[in-house]
Amino acid sequence: KLYKIANIPGDGIGKEVLPEGVKVLDKVGGLYGFSLDYTDLPWSCEYYVQTGSMMPENGIDILSKHDAIFLGAVGFPGVPDHVSLWGLLLPIRRQFDQYVNLRPIKLMPGMNTPLAKPGKIDFLIVRENTEGEYSDQGMILAEGTDEETVIQHSVFTRKGVDRLLKYGFELAQTREKKLDWATKSNGIYIAMPYWDGRAALMSKNYPDVATAQYHIDILSAHFVRDPARFDVVVASNLMGDILSDLGAACTGTIGVAPSANLNPEGKFPSMFEPVHGSAPDIYGQNIANPIGQIWSGAMMLEHLGEVEAAGAIMRAIEFVLSDETAPRTADMGGTATTQEMGDEVMARLS
Amino acid sequence: KLYKIANIPGDGIGKEVLPEGVKVLDKVGGLYGFSLDYTDLPWSCEYYVQTGSMMPENGIDILSKHDAIFLGAVGFPGVPDHVSLWGLLLPIRRQFDQYVNLRPIKLMPGMNTPLAKPGKIDFLIVRENTEGEYSDQGMILAEGTDEETVIQHSVFTRKGVDRLLKYGFELAQTREKKLDWATKSNGIYIAMPYWDGRAALMSKNYPDVATAQYHIDILSAHFVRDPARFDVVVASNLMGDILSDLGAACTGTIGVAPSANLNPEGKFPSMFEPVHGSAPDIYGQNIANPIGQIWSGAMMLEHLGEVEAAGAIMRAIEFVLSDETAPRTADMGGTATTQEMGDEVMARLS
Ligand SMILES: CC(C)[C@H](C(=O)O)[C@@H](O)C(=O)O
Ligand SMILES: CC(C)[C@H](C(=O)O)[C@@H](O)C(=O)O
Repeated sequence: KLYKIANIPGDGIGKEVLPEGVKVLDKVGGLYGFSLDYTDLPWSCEYYVQTGSMMPENGIDILSKHDAIFLGAVGFPGVPDHVSLWGLLLPIRRQFDQYVNLRPIKLMPGMNTPLAKPGKIDFLIVRENTEGEYSDQGMILAEGTDEETVIQHSVFTRKGVDRLLKYGFELAQTREKKLDWATKSNGIYIAMPYWDGRAALMSKNYPDVATAQYHIDILSAHFVRDPARFDVVVASNLMGDILSDLGAACTGTIGVAPSANLNPEGKFPSMFEPVHGSAPDIYGQNIANPIGQIWSGAMMLEHLGEVEAAGAIMRAIEFVLSDETAPRTADMGGTATTQEMGDEVMARLS
Repeated sequence: KLYKIANIPGDGIGKEVLPEGVKVLDKVGGLYGFSLDYTDLPWSCEYYVQTGSMMPENGIDILSKHDAIFLGAVGFPGVPDHVSLWGLLLPIRRQFDQYVNLRPIKLMPGMNTPLAKPGKIDFLIVRENTEGEYSDQGMILAEGTDEETVIQHSVFTRKGVDRLLKYGFELAQTREKKLDWATKSNGIYIAMPYWDGRAALMSKNYPDVATAQYHIDILSAHFVRDPARFDVVVASNLMGDILSDLGAACTGTIGVAPSANLNPEGKFPSMFEPVHGSAPDIYGQNIANPIGQIWSGAMMLEHLGEVEAAGAIMRAIEFVLSDETAPRTADMGGTATTQEMGDEVMARLS
C-alpha cells in the first residue's frame, strides 16, 4: 500500500522537526507493510521572499493530488504573520474544508506538568477551523485620521457551527459522554449566544451526552486549576486556538502536542501539524522537541486507516517519555538535540 | 472627608462578598479619617425579573453623582448573560468611558499556586474596556434557514487603542520598564495587525520601555509556564479578559484578584470589582472568598487619593494570606465562611 504525502516543513523549527516525523513514519511503514511517497514542498516565508507568494498559484491543486498533508510550522520574522498565514496555512484549511481541528491534550507518563495536582489529563479539543473570528474581512474607516476606526467581521454559519458540534458530540459518545463548550456570550452579543443556542439544540440529539457551557475566561482558569475534569471541549476558531496552547502548556510543554486539520468526509486531504509554531527564538539550535510532529504523524496514519502503525508510534512515544533515562529536549528540561529525541523514538519502535 | 460610593452587589456571590468589602472600607475610613457614604443599588438579575431591566432608565445618571462605583458581580441563570451584562456592567464601563481595566496579578505570600516553580509573580494586566471584540453590533443573514450566517463586528478605534497603550507605557515607566502586548495578528487579519502597528508606533515615544508582541495563544502558554517574566501586559477587551482570569488562576485562585475600571481623566466615576464573577455554583453557601472584593476596595481608595488607607488594607490582606493558621475559604483549600475571612482582614487592620 502506498500513500501520497505532501510535506511542507515551512518555517523555523518546522524545518527541524518535520524530518524527524518523516523518519519515524518511514520506519513504521516498513514494519507494518505500507509505504509513503512524499512530495517535498518548500513553501514558506523564504519562498515568499523569493517569489512574492507563500505557495505557487496552483498550490492547492498540487496538494489535492495527495492523500494527506504533513506540515511543520508557518511564520517567520520578516514576513508579516497575517501575510504568511493567510498565504499558506489558512487557505489550506479553508480550501480543503478541514473544518475540524482536533487537538489531544494528554499528560503522558513521565511528562512534567507545572500543575501541582494534575490528575489524569486526557481530553480532546475540537476546534472550528474554517470560519469564526479568523477573518480577513472588515474595513478601515477614516483611515489615516484621528477618527480611524477598524471594523473586523467574524463570520459564523449555521452549517459551520452545526457540523463542528455534531463531530464533537459523536466523538463524546465514543468516550466519557461528556462535552463542554466554550463561548463568551456575555460579551460578544450576537455570535456567541448564537453558538450557545446551536449547541443547546444539537445536544437534544445526543441525550446520552452530558454538556456544560463555559465562558472562555473562566474555562481558561479551570484548565489550570483542574484540567483532569475535561473530556471533549468544543470551541470556536479563536477560542480553540487559545485553549489548545493553554491545555498543552498545562501538560508541561507545548512541544509534544499534535493536531489534525480534518475534512471528516474525506472529500479533500486532511493536514497534520504540531500545535507549536515556528518558534523563531529557538530556530537553528536543533533543540526543538520533535514529539509534536511525530505524534501528528501518528494521527495522520490513523486517519489514513493505518491504526496499528499509529498505535506503534504512540507506544514508542510513551516509552521514551516514561523512561527517565531517555533523552529530553530543552522544553522538558534536558539537553538532547531534535535528532537525538527522534532517534530515540525510532529505537523504541517495534 | 466624605466619599460618595454607589454600591452594586449585583448577583450571586457578589451579594455575599460586597458587604465584606464595605465593612473593611468603613473600618479603614475610621482609622484614616474619612468616611464613605453609600448608596445601595439593588440592580441585578432579580431586579430585571421584577422590572424588565437591569437598572432604571436614569441609572447612569444616579451613578454619575458618586465618586466611585463598588460592584460585586453581574449575571445569573434565568436571565441570558448577554442581556444582563449589556444591561448593567458593560453600559457602565462604556458610558463612563472607563477605558482601562487594570488587573493586578500577584502571588501573595502564603498563596498556593498550582504552578510548580512560580517565582515572583507580580504583574499588571492593562485591558481595553470600552470597545473591541465586546460588541452588540452585527447581523444575522438568512435567519432561520440552513444558510443562516451570523456576522459579528469588532470595533477598534485609533483613539481607543492609543489611549490604552499610552496608559500602559506610562505605567511601565513607573515599574520595570517592560511592556508586552497580546494580539492574534496571524489569524485576525485587519484589526490585530492594526493593533500591532499602533503599539509599535506608540513605543517610539517610550524608548526606555522594552516591548514584545505575543500572539494570545502562546502568551497563554507562557502565563502557565513562566508567569514571573511579566510586568505590564496590554491587551484588547477579549484577550485581556481571558488573560486576567488565567493569570489569577496561575496564582492559585481567582478569588483574590481585584480589578479597577478606570476613567483615568477622572471625568466620570470609576468602578471597582473583583475579577471572579457571580459564581452561581457556589452562591448561597457563604464560602466565596471576599479578598478579591476587599482588594478592589483598596484599589478604589487608592484611586480616590487615600493611598495610605489603601496600603493598610493591602498589608492586612497580606498578613492574613501569609499566616498559615488564619482562616481560608474553600477556593484556597480551607473551610472558612466569607464572613470569617472578612473578619480576619478586619482584625489585622491597624
Ligand atoms: C461578566 C463579563 C461580561 C465580564 C467581562 O468579560 O468583561 C467579566 O468576565 C470580567 O472580566 O469583568
Ligand atoms: C499560526 C496560526 C495562524 C495558527 C492558528 O492560530 O490557527 C496556529 O497558532 C495554530 O494553532 O495552528
